[in-house]
Amino acid sequence: MKKIFLSEDEIPRKWYNIAADLPQPMRPPLGPDGNPVSPDMLAPVFPMNLIEQEVSTERWIDIPDEILQILYRWRPSPLVRAYALEEALGTPAKIYYKNESVSPAGSHKPNTAVAQAWYNKQFGIEKLTTETGAGQWGSALSFSCALVGLECKVYMVRISFDQKPFRKMMMETWGGNCVASPSNETNAGRAVLAKDANTPGSLGIAISEAIEAAVTDEKGKTRYALGSVLNHVCTHQTIIGLEAKKQLEKVGIKKPDIVIGCAGGGSNFAGISFPFILDKINGADIEIIPVEPASCPTMTKGKFLYDNGDIAQMTPLLPMHTLGNTFIPEPIHAGGLRYHGMAPLVSACVEQGLASPQALHQLECFAGAILFAKTEGIIPAPETSHAIASVIREANKAKEEGKEKTILFNFSGHGLMDLVGYEKYLNGELHDYDLPQSVIDENLKALEGLPKPEAY
Amino acid sequence: MKKIFLSEDEIPRKWYNIAADLPQPMRPPLGPDGNPVSPDMLAPVFPMNLIEQEVSTERWIDIPDEILQILYRWRPSPLVRAYALEEALGTPAKIYYKNESVSPAGSHKPNTAVAQAWYNKQFGIEKLTTETGAGQWGSALSFSCALVGLECKVYMVRISFDQKPFRKMMMETWGGNCVASPSNETNAGRAVLAKDANTPGSLGIAISEAIEAAVTDEKGKTRYALGSVLNHVCTHQTIIGLEAKKQLEKVGIKKPDIVIGCAGGGSNFAGISFPFILDKINGADIEIIPVEPASCPTMTKGKFLYDNGDIAQMTPLLPMHTLGNTFIPEPIHAGGLRYHGMAPLVSACVEQGLASPQALHQLECFAGAILFAKTEGIIPAPETSHAIASVIREANKAKEEGKEKTILFNFSGHGLMDLVGYEKYLNGELHDYDLPQSVIDENLKALEGLPKPEAY
Repeated sequence: MKKIFLSEDEIPRKWYNIAADLPQPMRPPLGPDGNPVSPDMLAPVFPMNLIEQEVSTERWIDIPDEILQILYRWRPSPLVRAYALEEALGTPAKIYYKNESVSPAGSHKPNTAVAQAWYNKQFGIEKLTTETGAGQWGSALSFSCALVGLECKVYMVRISFDQKPFRKMMMETWGGNCVASPSNETNAGRAVLAKDANTPGSLGIAISEAIEAAVTDEKGKTRYALGSVLNHVCTHQTIIGLEAKKQLEKVGIKKPDIVIGCAGGGSNFAGISFPFILDKINGADIEIIPVEPASCPTMTKGKFLYDNGDIAQMTPLLPMHTLGNTFIPEPIHAGGLRYHGMAPLVSACVEQGLASPQALHQLECFAGAILFAKTEGIIPAPETSHAIASVIREANKAKEEGKEKTILFNFSGHGLMDLVGYEKYLNGELHDYDLPQSVIDENLKALEGLPKPEAY
Repeated sequence: MKKIFLSEDEIPRKWYNIAADLPQPMRPPLGPDGNPVSPDMLAPVFPMNLIEQEVSTERWIDIPDEILQILYRWRPSPLVRAYALEEALGTPAKIYYKNESVSPAGSHKPNTAVAQAWYNKQFGIEKLTTETGAGQWGSALSFSCALVGLECKVYMVRISFDQKPFRKMMMETWGGNCVASPSNETNAGRAVLAKDANTPGSLGIAISEAIEAAVTDEKGKTRYALGSVLNHVCTHQTIIGLEAKKQLEKVGIKKPDIVIGCAGGGSNFAGISFPFILDKINGADIEIIPVEPASCPTMTKGKFLYDNGDIAQMTPLLPMHTLGNTFIPEPIHAGGLRYHGMAPLVSACVEQGLASPQALHQLECFAGAILFAKTEGIIPAPETSHAIASVIREANKAKEEGKEKTILFNFSGHGLMDLVGYEKYLNGELHDYDLPQSVIDENLKALEGLPKPEAY
């Protein structure tokens, strides 16, 4: 069997919350005053039902049936044995990938977008706001709001808005409203435009606009949604790994030897890996590898500190690996991996020795992606190509060692909206970047006055 | 259950060839001399194993296991019950769609592209050539050649090449070589360029270049591949309907009441409908609806005549519905439906009263596509939107009649590479076209000297 399916009645009915099982408890997020943030402080931004999930330490959280009814459009997603890739590599390793590209938005993002939209709707919210960089998250949220019945407003970083017009068209086809950020619709946007009418924008500005639009709704019926980093987002994504576990069991595999996911904000890696990290905590011998770009090496070269999730410093201080919120990564084509921080839950796993990050260069990743496209057939998203390149490394290592390892990775999305990167790669126009330690140190200086999280 | 899956061992192992069952036998294709074409005459263009399929009247044709191994990457494709669309329409009809958009190329086209590539490889061929208009077929063939191990050369109509750069990037990611047509690489291309260096090109010129490149290979190792119209192409696509039949049986549906597919060259419609037309021939009460654009109404306003499949008149004369090979349709956004003719097998079904074509306007189709995207989630290809609009009509009719009909349609592809059409629709920039009968008559005049097919 190349593809292993689950029927709809085999879908997991609970999300897994790893906060319940980490050997050392999570360090709390802090407010501007240096004290732990209380749920009430987050209430203007998120609905209380999601805030409860964010701070929960319950191991299992029920997935409401109404959410499953929407996820059934593409879930359970197939687990696929990559026979052709194995053959091309001549490896004794068995390579399985969880194909999250089958969602209508083309990636894993709708797993949490649908859940967030639904919880907001339950809470009486009528409209969600968000920011988007490359457009993947904005598309997923527009899609989800259409299906749940919410308005959706997306602030898209101006330079991406201009370079990637197709993402805006996707959002608008689903009924979302997408504007270039900075926009004239918020104080934050107008202030930036007043200084520089031709600014390319930034994710920080877009976040500021989205949060402002949420908290200033006079009816109180608007909230903000975030596509990665936060605990509840990681928890929603665990349906990926929980399904994969059942699917591996169907072909008699009790545990994979290696689990790999690319990591930008961390949610897709969390999704595939957390259910297996639980096994690892319980004694199983599993190697867990989050893969990041060498040009944005948050886990491998950044520091575990308190930092804001955004450059505008509107979020609480989060205990995470960071390159400093002022860090602007080089423009590599995996836009979804260009983030200065890392999900606190993922950072905790790395700090507690449960995950071993790798940093890879983009040329190796594109080469791996092309091999995957020519063997398995699907053109990977540039983000996903980082997981693939790591899989190829591990499969080659298994060949050298002569070991029949089982490698599982998350095929987080397809690259049909990212073909410009492939063209540049094929034309030899892309280059590798290594981030000098001095740049990281410089950016981290700004955090020196902040509280430090207790080491795990 | 929203999705009905088949396991890989439930996949059909034979294609269905409707030529075996048509109440009246197919009229033969004719050569330039007016006599039936012999297999030998096609040998420079196609490999003999595919020519044998083209002329076969065997009812069932074995699908080689090696082809199934490739199709397993996405097949069997899911059959999905469109509950949310039904609810939005308030219809008592049960709507099922076969989701062919899950292929790595995003449409049904790889079903035959893989088969054609494999048979060519078996025959010792090393390279395939083809033309592509909007790029869907060229992508599918590049994908298939990568997986089978053939070179692939695609001549893409210049105006599409310039307007749709992403399609070229897709092809090249899979290792295909895509050039704008007319090119400097063929006599046909050079002749056109000599007259007009800035010509936008045409499908006819691109076909001429592709065939010339195939037949002039001195090693004799190159052949040409066509993405629709021909008998073997329609036959390869029947895996769609054969799977759908098994899937409907799994939920206790012995037969659908209505089967709908959009029709450009006819292969996707053939794929979903032929196995059900067999049931109809055997007495089942099933309505079979091919849907074409009102601006290119081949079946509803064209005539059943002998005509060339291409404007360059390099193909044999085919017995089919045609608007005349010189007809250039208005530039509607469903590029895959802008074809002057119709697959002879589909034409035979229409002429023999087994299928009842509809012609729809594009605004109605885009409106249906948007409703589908906002309810079922997937953004449809503009071609597919024609099937959807017809489904909505039939579902509304079932509502008026208070009948719980089962409607099956082929979701032939997603629209992620066609978002410009959606943007134009949402901006109110698209218009409907009705093709005047006088234009059709004018184009058909050129066929007056040709032999006429015996009426069915």
